[in-house]
Amino acid sequence: MSSNDPAEPTQISTDDAQAPHEAATEHEGAPEPQDVARPAPEGGEAAPSEAAAVANIGVVGLAVMGSNLARNLASREGNTVAVYNRSHEKTDSLVAEHREAGFVPGYSYEEFAASLQKPRTAIIMVKAGAATDAVIDELMRVFEPGDIIVDGGNSLFTDTIRREKAARERGFNFVGMGVSGGEEGALHGPSLMPGGPDESWVTLGPILRSIAAVAEGEPCVTHIGHDGAGHFVKMVHNGIEYADMQLIAEAYDLIRRGTGKTPAEIADIFAEWNRGELESYLIEITAEVLRQVDAATGKPLVDVILDQAGAKGTGAWTVQTALDLGVPVSGIAEAVFARSLSSHPEQRAVSHGLPGPEEAFSVDDVDAFVEEVRLALYASKIVAYSQGFDEIRAGAARYDWSIDLGAVSKIWRAGCIIRAQFLNRIADAYAAEPDLPVLLTAPYFVDALTRGQTAWRRVVATAAAAGIPSPAFSSSLAYYDGLRADRLPAALVQGQRDFFGAHTYKRVDREGTFHTLWSGDRTEVEAEDTH
Amino acid sequence: MSSNDPAEPTQISTDDAQAPHEAATEHEGAPEPQDVARPAPEGGEAAPSEAAAVANIGVVGLAVMGSNLARNLASREGNTVAVYNRSHEKTDSLVAEHREAGFVPGYSYEEFAASLQKPRTAIIMVKAGAATDAVIDELMRVFEPGDIIVDGGNSLFTDTIRREKAARERGFNFVGMGVSGGEEGALHGPSLMPGGPDESWVTLGPILRSIAAVAEGEPCVTHIGHDGAGHFVKMVHNGIEYADMQLIAEAYDLIRRGTGKTPAEIADIFAEWNRGELESYLIEITAEVLRQVDAATGKPLVDVILDQAGAKGTGAWTVQTALDLGVPVSGIAEAVFARSLSSHPEQRAVSHGLPGPEEAFSVDDVDAFVEEVRLALYASKIVAYSQGFDEIRAGAARYDWSIDLGAVSKIWRAGCIIRAQFLNRIADAYAAEPDLPVLLTAPYFVDALTRGQTAWRRVVATAAAAGIPSPAFSSSLAYYDGLRADRLPAALVQGQRDFFGAHTYKRVDREGTFHTLWSGDRTEVEAEDTH
Repeated sequence: MSSNDPAEPTQISTDDAQAPHEAATEHEGAPEPQDVARPAPEGGEAAPSEAAAVANIGVVGLAVMGSNLARNLASREGNTVAVYNRSHEKTDSLVAEHREAGFVPGYSYEEFAASLQKPRTAIIMVKAGAATDAVIDELMRVFEPGDIIVDGGNSLFTDTIRREKAARERGFNFVGMGVSGGEEGALHGPSLMPGGPDESWVTLGPILRSIAAVAEGEPCVTHIGHDGAGHFVKMVHNGIEYADMQLIAEAYDLIRRGTGKTPAEIADIFAEWNRGELESYLIEITAEVLRQVDAATGKPLVDVILDQAGAKGTGAWTVQTALDLGVPVSGIAEAVFARSLSSHPEQRAVSHGLPGPEEAFSVDDVDAFVEEVRLALYASKIVAYSQGFDEIRAGAARYDWSIDLGAVSKIWRAGCIIRAQFLNRIADAYAAEPDLPVLLTAPYFVDALTRGQTAWRRVVATAAAAGIPSPAFSSSLAYYDGLRADRLPAALVQGQRDFFGAHTYKRVDREGTFHTLWSGDRTEVEAEDTH
Repeated sequence: MSSNDPAEPTQISTDDAQAPHEAATEHEGAPEPQDVARPAPEGGEAAPSEAAAVANIGVVGLAVMGSNLARNLASREGNTVAVYNRSHEKTDSLVAEHREAGFVPGYSYEEFAASLQKPRTAIIMVKAGAATDAVIDELMRVFEPGDIIVDGGNSLFTDTIRREKAARERGFNFVGMGVSGGEEGALHGPSLMPGGPDESWVTLGPILRSIAAVAEGEPCVTHIGHDGAGHFVKMVHNGIEYADMQLIAEAYDLIRRGTGKTPAEIADIFAEWNRGELESYLIEITAEVLRQVDAATGKPLVDVILDQAGAKGTGAWTVQTALDLGVPVSGIAEAVFARSLSSHPEQRAVSHGLPGPEEAFSVDDVDAFVEEVRLALYASKIVAYSQGFDEIRAGAARYDWSIDLGAVSKIWRAGCIIRAQFLNRIADAYAAEPDLPVLLTAPYFVDALTRGQTAWRRVVATAAAAGIPSPAFSSSLAYYDGLRADRLPAALVQGQRDFFGAHTYKRVDREGTFHTLWSGDRTEVEAEDTH
C-alpha cells in the first residue's frame, strides 16, 4: 500500500442496508493519491493514456458496490461508463469479465478525467471517511469547475454538507447520494437518494433515473434536497430499518416462546403475513431465514447463528442526530440498544441467573395470540416510520432543505431494504396533508391503530409478565400513549427542575415564565425566560 | 458588549443539575479578551493594578455559580480568593456585598494573575463553549507554565480532552471539573468531579476537599482520572438524573391515574418512600413539589405547571456518547425522549384524539398498587444506575482512564442532585468486585430485583393495558429481561443481515465467520470476518 494511503475513517463509517465496507476493501478501496498515468497493462482493454472523451459517466472504486453500479450504468441505453480503481488489477478484471459493458478504463485520474464528456460526472464508491475525502481531492485536481462529483458511499450527512460547501467554493457540483439495496440493488436497481445542487440534477437526473429500481412505473430516485439532504434521508432509512428488523425479531421471539412453534412453522406465519398489510421485503426474507435448515446439524439455522447482532453505525447516527434535533425516535433507539446489549456476552453471561417469572409462558389460544402479535407488529411499525419521518421533517427544518416526504416514501418502495406496500400509505398521507405534524395521525394509520391497539397492549403486557424482552414493542406503545396523553407528568419534572435548579416553568393558564422561591417563602415570582 | 465578545457556544452547552447559563449571563459572563488593567472604579475595593500575590485560588466568572463557589472557597480556613469578571460591576458588587470574604478583585487578567500565588490556580465558571475557550486563552496569556487552570463549567468531555492537550503542550495543568449541586451546592458544598493531570491534584486536592460536600465524613471529591474523565462522569451523572426524574414522574402518574389520589396525598406517599430504600434528594423534593399549592388558583402547583419538560443537553450527550461506546442506556434515552415528546405541543395537539383503552383505569387495592409501583420504581432505578455505570466503565476503557467506580458513587452521596442512600450500595458492590461487568448483578441488587420483579412486571403490564405512558419503566424491564435471556432473537437479525447484505454471522457451535449463499444454492460458506 502507498504510504499516502488515506487513514481508515475514524467515524462510524458504514451502514447496514448497504455494506460500504464492500464498496472498497481495506486493500483495494482507497485510491492512491499519487497515481500517475501509465500504459494499460498486458491483457487489459486498449486504454490510451490520452483517452478520448467518450464516456458520459464514471465510477471510482470498483469493489462489489462500485462494480455493480458501473455494470448497471453500462447496461442502460445511451451510457458509456468510465471506470477507475486504485488497484489496476481490479479495473482490468472488471473490464475483462464484462466486455459487453464497454467500460472505458482509466489507470490514472488524468486518464479517467480525459475519458469523460463535460460536464464530467463521476460517482465515488469508496469507503466513507478519509478515503472519500482523498478521492474528492483527486477528482477536483483533474476535473474542471462545473463538473459533477457524486459520493455514493454511506457518508455522514454533516461530512456531506462540509464537502459540498468546499467543492462549491471551487466551482464544482458536489452531490452526496444515499444508495440503498446492497449489491443486488446496485446491479439491478437501487433506491437512490441524491442531494446536492439543482444544477447537477440536469445532467444527473436522467442517468440516475435510468438505473434506479422501479416501483409502479416510477423510478426510485428523486432529488431529495440540497447538500447533505440525500445522505440524511439515507441515514434515517437505515434507522427505520433497524427498528423494523427489531420489531420482527420481537414478534418471532414472542410467538416462538409463547406457542412452541418451530422456526419453520413461524416461517409459514411470516409468509402468510407477507400477503397482507405487512407485505414487505423484510417480512419476506424473515420467512426465508426461518425456513433455512443448517446442513451441518440439521437444526434450524436461526438456532445455530450466534445471537449477537452486529451494527455498522448508521442506526446510532440516526439516534444521535435525532437527539440533536429533539425528535423522540425511541423505537429506533431501542433497536440499536437491543443490538448492543446482545453483543456484550460477558455481561449476559453473568446475568443469565437473574430472576424471571416463576410460571412458564404459554398461550392458550395460539391463533388468537399470533394475530395479536401481528397487530402489535403493525402498530409498532407505524410508530417507527412515524418517528423516522418526524426526524426527516425536523432535519429539513433545521438544515433548510425542501424535502417532499411523500416522494421520499415513494422512492423506498423498491430497491431498498425497507421496501413495502406500506410506503404507499405514507405517500397517500403526505399527498393529502404535506405538513402533517405526526405521520401516525393520518386517517389510514389511525384506522390501523384503532384496530390494533387493544392487541398491542395485550402483547406488551404479556411480554412484560412473561419475561420476554420486547423493548421496541413496548417503547413504541409508550410513545403512542405519550403522544395522545392530555396531560403528561412532564409537569412534575418541570417542578423538580425548578426546585433544584431554578430552571423556571410555564403555566397552563397564563403567559410568562415563573419560579417558585422553594428555599424562601415558596411564593411564585415571574422570571426571565432563561430557556 | 465588546466586538471581541466570544460567540455563543454552538454546542449544547448546559445541563440540568447545575444551571450553567447562570454561571454567566449573556451580558456578563464572557470576559472581554481585550481587557486591560485599569484603576479600580469609584466605590470599589482598593485594588492596586500591581497586586501582591496574596491569593491561593482564583475564580473567573462571577455569575451565580461562580460567586457562590468563590464565597464557599473564601469561607474555608486558609483560602484567599482572587476574583475576576469581565463586567467589573459584578466584581465590585460581590466584593462589596461580602466584605467578610476578603476577596481580592482583579480588573484585568494581568492584575488577576499578579494576585495569585504560584502555582497559580484559577477556576473558570463561565458558559461552556466559546466563552470557556476565550477565558482559557486569556489565562494562558497571563499565567506561566506549571500554573493550574480549572474549567468548572459543564463542558463536553471531548472539548476538555482537546483543551487539556493544548494546555499541556504549552506546559499548563488544565483540569476539567464537573460541579454538581446547583447554586446551593456551589455555596455550601458541591459534589466535585475533577479530571486533569496528577500534578494538579497536589495543589488542587486540599482546596477542593475543603469546599466539597461531606458524606459520612468523606468529602465528595475525588480525582476521577486524566483529561476529560471528570466532565465525562459529570455528564453521565446528569444522564442518570434524567432517568431518575422520569421514573419518579411515571410512578406519580400511575398512582394518580390509577387511584385518583390528589397530589398532596401522593406527596405523603413520596415522603413515606423517602424513609425507606428509595431515600434520596429527588424523592424528597418530589414530595415538596407535589405538596405545593398554587396561590393564584388554589390548585396543586403540579396541575398549573405546563407539562412540557425542558432539557439542557447533557442527557442527550450521555445517550449520544453511549451510542458511540456501544452501551445500551435505554432508560436514560427514554427519559430524554419523554422530555422531547412533551415539548412538541403541535404534535400532541393533533394526537389527543388517538384511540386508547375503552375502560377507565382504576385499581382495586390501592395500597397494594402503590407498593407495586414503589418496587417497580426501585427496580427501574437499579437498571438506570447500572446502565450509567456501564457507560462510565466503557468510557474509561475507551479513553484509557483509570476510574474507581466505587469512589464515583461515593462522591455522589452528597452535594449533587442524585444524592441517595442507594449510592452506598453501589460503593459496596464495587468494593466487593471492582471489575463487576454489570452493576445490577451485585448481590444486594439481585436481592432487590428478586423482591421487586413480579411487581415491576405487573406495573408495566398495567400501564400498557391502561394506556399510561411508562417508557422508562418498560424499557428498564425490557433491558433486564434482555440481559438475563439465554437466547435473544438477535440471531434472527443476524440472519436477516446476512440475507440482504452478506454481513455474515457466527455460529454457536464452532469458531469462524459464515455466510449462507442466499441467492445461490443456500449452502453455507466460511467467510472472511468483515466486522
